[in-house]
Amino acid sequence: MSKSMHLGLFLAANGHHAGGWRHPDAAQGNPLDFDYYREIAQKAEAAKLDMIFIADKLAIDDNYGGNFDSSVTYRPALSAEPLTLISALSAATQKIGLAATASTTYHEPYHIARMFATLDHLSKGRVAWNVVTSTSDAEARNFSKKEHLDHATRYERAQEFVEVVQKLWDSWEEDALLIDKSRGVFADKDKVHYANHQGKWFDVKGPLNIPRSPQGHPVLIQAGSSETFRALAAQYAELIFTAQPNIESAKTFYQDLKSRVESYGRSRDAVKILPGTMLIVGDTEQEAKDKEQYLHSLIHTQTGLAFMSGSMNYDLSKHALDEPFPDIEQEIRGSRGRFQFVFRKAKEEGLTLAQVARWYIQSRSHNVVVGTPSSIADRLETWFKEESCDGFNLMAPYMSGGLDDIFERVIPELQNRGVFREAYTSDTLRGHFGLQSPNNRYSQAAKPSTILI
Amino acid sequence: MSKSMHLGLFLAANGHHAGGWRHPDAAQGNPLDFDYYREIAQKAEAAKLDMIFIADKLAIDDNYGGNFDSSVTYRPALSAEPLTLISALSAATQKIGLAATASTTYHEPYHIARMFATLDHLSKGRVAWNVVTSTSDAEARNFSKKEHLDHATRYERAQEFVEVVQKLWDSWEEDALLIDKSRGVFADKDKVHYANHQGKWFDVKGPLNIPRSPQGHPVLIQAGSSETFRALAAQYAELIFTAQPNIESAKTFYQDLKSRVESYGRSRDAVKILPGTMLIVGDTEQEAKDKEQYLHSLIHTQTGLAFMSGSMNYDLSKHALDEPFPDIEQEIRGSRGRFQFVFRKAKEEGLTLAQVARWYIQSRSHNVVVGTPSSIADRLETWFKEESCDGFNLMAPYMSGGLDDIFERVIPELQNRGVFREAYTSDTLRGHFGLQSPNNRYSQAAKPSTILI
Repeated sequence: MSKSMHLGLFLAANGHHAGGWRHPDAAQGNPLDFDYYREIAQKAEAAKLDMIFIADKLAIDDNYGGNFDSSVTYRPALSAEPLTLISALSAATQKIGLAATASTTYHEPYHIARMFATLDHLSKGRVAWNVVTSTSDAEARNFSKKEHLDHATRYERAQEFVEVVQKLWDSWEEDALLIDKSRGVFADKDKVHYANHQGKWFDVKGPLNIPRSPQGHPVLIQAGSSETFRALAAQYAELIFTAQPNIESAKTFYQDLKSRVESYGRSRDAVKILPGTMLIVGDTEQEAKDKEQYLHSLIHTQTGLAFMSGSMNYDLSKHALDEPFPDIEQEIRGSRGRFQFVFRKAKEEGLTLAQVARWYIQSRSHNVVVGTPSSIADRLETWFKEESCDGFNLMAPYMSGGLDDIFERVIPELQNRGVFREAYTSDTLRGHFGLQSPNNRYSQAAKPSTILI
Repeated sequence: MSKSMHLGLFLAANGHHAGGWRHPDAAQGNPLDFDYYREIAQKAEAAKLDMIFIADKLAIDDNYGGNFDSSVTYRPALSAEPLTLISALSAATQKIGLAATASTTYHEPYHIARMFATLDHLSKGRVAWNVVTSTSDAEARNFSKKEHLDHATRYERAQEFVEVVQKLWDSWEEDALLIDKSRGVFADKDKVHYANHQGKWFDVKGPLNIPRSPQGHPVLIQAGSSETFRALAAQYAELIFTAQPNIESAKTFYQDLKSRVESYGRSRDAVKILPGTMLIVGDTEQEAKDKEQYLHSLIHTQTGLAFMSGSMNYDLSKHALDEPFPDIEQEIRGSRGRFQFVFRKAKEEGLTLAQVARWYIQSRSHNVVVGTPSSIADRLETWFKEESCDGFNLMAPYMSGGLDDIFERVIPELQNRGVFREAYTSDTLRGHFGLQSPNNRYSQAAKPSTILI
């Protein structure tokens, strides 16, 4: 087989299309029912996907008009807490990787280091942390803060947060645990280390109370596209999740990121880039397009306005719906990078606020591929072979029907073409993605296991 | 069957006796191996236990001598993060309750409310939160604090923390979720509420982004015995976990707590009290006593010194090992209630520091019952029938052998006597313990379902 693309499943309980939950085939039960998640995870594993990826938000958006009505009424505002969800899924699966989002703005590094290290043990080396900085004041107000940190400040905190977590993950050397019953020596104290971190944001002494985990460090994912994001991701990220609306923007992003990675002395292959990609599948091109249009018809305009306001951390209700989209690029305080494309498009096409809101929420700046299994596979193959990505974080428009189309029709097509694996060849998330385990900063440079393998 | 006692399994990866990890039958592998936990949990469920209970500490103790040598060398210093562990166990079990410890001193209420609510959904109503305030400066130093909050202050914070969490758990009324596809109404906005909490410690707006969970609120457990603890527990706790070294102290505690519960207008039955109880089982009384002595012989004195120093948040290395136990009752800043008995005993019996350290770490003030399955059942039955407890949080001295003795020999004996269930009669943790679901503060007082059932 030629080089294989990497495929994640970007899991959202009610599907990724904003109208998806209203589709006749969409599940209508409790969106936190574990039987539902278990079945999806086991299908994803049967399809040999690299990982399941779970995003997160620490509030219900209430920027738009200062209330949450549009968020709870018109769109699924609920999301299972990702760490607990992937823990449960780890017990229901054997091979597939599991990635959970956690915010550096509203968590403590010791908890995050410990939870992911525990999970890496429990899952036998299958977890990843998607590092985010959060977006909105609604989140700040759930954590005794008046407003969200500004963009530069929260990235500064994120960088220090990641450094602390990595120090804690290194605090037990790989061979520190002895459990020598006869001598009565549980661990080698000389191979356990204080982190002794003292910084602007955090003072964390350590050591972690978890021995080094199977992957050394759980895999680090970062998601975004802004300039600040790129600078951080190029240093720390091992997987990058990004919203790229088309192959041109994806190529530019891919080449830029890979160059930056090299500028930090890292190998291009040390980082894999996966754009979010929604697939809408039909028996014919026309049927797929009709399905997309039908899904669009199920969207309320308020859903777009509420979601955009939350992501921008800006109240769009100040502006008239039928006037041209307002010039607010310098005023938004939430996500930045993913809206640059939106501002440009609104200007070029002279769109109104209502038009932008409806259009934006259809895909949230993600790539959408609509067609037959074969034509979809063509386009995914092109993106992959033309070096605009290392694979995709796949998004089902509605659950479970829209997901079954992906598992049962698109993945087999990619496997037949030899661009996606037909069987797992490793047991860890690092293994699936071909990512090396990091060295422990405290271990001898010339570790035999590092040299000989 | 007459009234049934309630039994939890107080799970510790390396067993509860400080010498247990060195026992020839003790497991020697990775103490974070999920296969090991899964097997134990499934055995506990087969034995029809009410719940599995997991304690926690947010650091490796390093009070004694200002380093962690005695903690990592002589005793298992490692503990899986409890929330992620019980999440994974929820996917591997069907009926048994799952209780995780989380600290109000070092967590944020929104995360705690959300994780437990998620878990209550995923487990279909089987989770409990053991509310603790933590004990030592080692924990403080992992969270950018110089030292641990003093006793009164951390209980003040704990009380407000629990109130915030309960407000968030109430923020979605039971019937708020509609998922009405045809009208396009996901939730009833009038049944979703801001928490709007503003207090001394926390400002939390809410609402939670999780709908009301199967148990209404996950069950609240509190653990302790100090005066401050009792005042808080009598108002909020539904299960109380306590260390009581003998039946007299247990009876006094039980009667005091139940009276306090009533003084807050709650029913005596609204709170169940479970003392931690280590069982050491033999074919004969002598064999059991020999087993206990053998386990004691495996303990290092340093283990007792390090563990006591951590729990007291006080460095005992300042004192000579062979001098009488020092008079430091007013100086310790960690756990209070559980050491009152220790100070008294040391004084009455004229014990040295080394003697107290070795004795304390054998049971950590918990009741220890040593004997044959029949004589152990006699004593548990006496405790239960004489109203010194509502059941026990059972502790195995070593794993898995010491635990199998409990499951295979003691539990069947209790079942034969009709004092413990032979089959589950409910599916939730509240159901197992006979605890009612709380009303939602926002729901109509005269809810038909409340009146008619």
